[in-house]
Amino acid sequence: MLAYKNQSKTPLSSLGEFGLIDHLTNTFAIQNKSTLKGVGDDAAVLQLKNKTLITTDLLVEGVHFDLTYMPLKHLGYKAVMVNLSDIYAMNGNATQITVSIAVSNRFTLEALEELYAGIHLACKNYKVDLIGGDTTSSTTGLWISITAIGEAKTEDITYRNGAKPNDLLVVTGDLGAAYLGLQVLEREKQVFAVNPKSQPELDRYTYLVERQLKPEARKDIIKILKNLKVKPTAMIDISDGLSSEILHLCKQSNVGCDLYEDKIPLDQQVISTCEEFNMNSTTVALSGGEDYELLFTISPSDFDKIKGNPNLTIIGHMTAKNAGVSLVTRANQRIELTAQGWQSI
Amino acid sequence: MLAYKNQSKTPLSSLGEFGLIDHLTNTFAIQNKSTLKGVGDDAAVLQLKNKTLITTDLLVEGVHFDLTYMPLKHLGYKAVMVNLSDIYAMNGNATQITVSIAVSNRFTLEALEELYAGIHLACKNYKVDLIGGDTTSSTTGLWISITAIGEAKTEDITYRNGAKPNDLLVVTGDLGAAYLGLQVLEREKQVFAVNPKSQPELDRYTYLVERQLKPEARKDIIKILKNLKVKPTAMIDISDGLSSEILHLCKQSNVGCDLYEDKIPLDQQVISTCEEFNMNSTTVALSGGEDYELLFTISPSDFDKIKGNPNLTIIGHMTAKNAGVSLVTRANQRIELTAQGWQSI
Repeated sequence: MLAYKNQSKTPLSSLGEFGLIDHLTNTFAIQNKSTLKGVGDDAAVLQLKNKTLITTDLLVEGVHFDLTYMPLKHLGYKAVMVNLSDIYAMNGNATQITVSIAVSNRFTLEALEELYAGIHLACKNYKVDLIGGDTTSSTTGLWISITAIGEAKTEDITYRNGAKPNDLLVVTGDLGAAYLGLQVLEREKQVFAVNPKSQPELDRYTYLVERQLKPEARKDIIKILKNLKVKPTAMIDISDGLSSEILHLCKQSNVGCDLYEDKIPLDQQVISTCEEFNMNSTTVALSGGEDYELLFTISPSDFDKIKGNPNLTIIGHMTAKNAGVSLVTRANQRIELTAQGWQSI
Repeated sequence: MLAYKNQSKTPLSSLGEFGLIDHLTNTFAIQNKSTLKGVGDDAAVLQLKNKTLITTDLLVEGVHFDLTYMPLKHLGYKAVMVNLSDIYAMNGNATQITVSIAVSNRFTLEALEELYAGIHLACKNYKVDLIGGDTTSSTTGLWISITAIGEAKTEDITYRNGAKPNDLLVVTGDLGAAYLGLQVLEREKQVFAVNPKSQPELDRYTYLVERQLKPEARKDIIKILKNLKVKPTAMIDISDGLSSEILHLCKQSNVGCDLYEDKIPLDQQVISTCEEFNMNSTTVALSGGEDYELLFTISPSDFDKIKGNPNLTIIGHMTAKNAGVSLVTRANQRIELTAQGWQSI
């Protein structure tokens, strides 16, 4: 199937911890002037202008990823994206990461080289420096803990708590594809379990599978907003699903929200695959998660600046807190949003 | 025995991820002006003067700690110390940490409260702010990933690579006690396994056990050095044992070293317990690790400033690289140092 087939097998113990770190990180070049000292001392040394942004995520095998269908290179890439996305959600620029991993003895040097090839590609594509980390053994499985560092000018930083009633709710890209990609991969895994000679049928789901296996953090949006001279009033990234993130914005900004079902952007593969899987595409978009798109609010006076931009979709507007957080359905029904989708499902 | 006995049992699932983070972190007060935004957004926001220092460590149950004799509160405290020690080893001031944990469902809310009580105490004692993290489920055991952030003036930062021939090699505190503490606890664990009614005999080993279970990072030394107007030419913290750290300094500074066996500072409990356990106290100091003392080099012209200071012991001097890295024994023999202790053991 898609599992990483490792031909050569060098045990990790043959290098020792420091030899292993050297081996895995010596191809990483420093790309940012703000990195004064990267890997190799007790701590990295940075010279960050403006304000410093810090975020961290921990990914656990069997909880966050399944190596049966997640190639290690893709996993490395995605683990970096998950963290950078949080820096962009502050309207900042990601500049450095640390990467700590714990691995059981079933992983070989060649497997870790694949993982770090993905981390390396992500660093290169997003102009981020690997500046440190920790490598240790694990009693079971693979664990990846990444911390991302970024910077932003004080006046640019966008928190979750700045949304006002009447602000427009905007989302980037489209939603639900990463979750459906996971469903497709899980189905193929089941088929493979029954018949190991079967070949995966993924041609019709390429976009979905790519969104699950190789998401991209929306660095481009930060530049687009700057060029449009739009500063969001509040922003968050979509890791847990649209519903959950809207509720965070509303809670922290002390406002309500009307979200319009017919405005939620869906790719054609999401619509057709939802039909095939007999799933509701709105539920998938609201609860799916892992899209790593940005969700933000803007002042209504900024409407003209963003309208017609193919990267941005207005999906609702903020309201007074006592109006609640609602999904307005295609049938013009108003339903209370919950973190799992909606209340009355 | 010493295992954490949990009476009340609230399952973690009863709070949800965001409720759990809120519950565990709401008692943490912000103590540093440089922390503009801590827990609660996509990323924390810091305003760091001077240069930024970043370090990270990953601790794994069954690899780095054993909850049979490590109380969770102590574990939380120690996990923070391990990271702060790396910031002090750069001659910097630690200001913030992030804490990510993964826990299996055998851990209750009350268990995590104990862990965070230790983290809280460490933050309070060392004036460090908890600014973020991640909480997730684990397939097995407990995992703690901490990143520490600090700051230092450019002219104060001390790397591993600045030692010169004739510089004096200095160590803080005393060595080997943490490793022997672990041996004592392991022995009591074996006794308990055979006879669960036995009471641990730890009275004679209080210093050793405390050094293992509740180490302190040497923040005080950074202040002492500043007051003495001594800037080390190179510095590292002792996490893996004196030998390994000396070899790091020598390799990165491109120098050799003569280490004098009779100068290595040992507590009386280390000496008496080594006799009881029939171990060589020099081997224990060289290879034991987990002492979290600082090891540094100073210019010979600074000798007068540090001599007689009870916190600091001169244990050797640096040499030309081609002279090698040697232990000079009490019998005045010269033996090549290796990461595991010495070559000819």
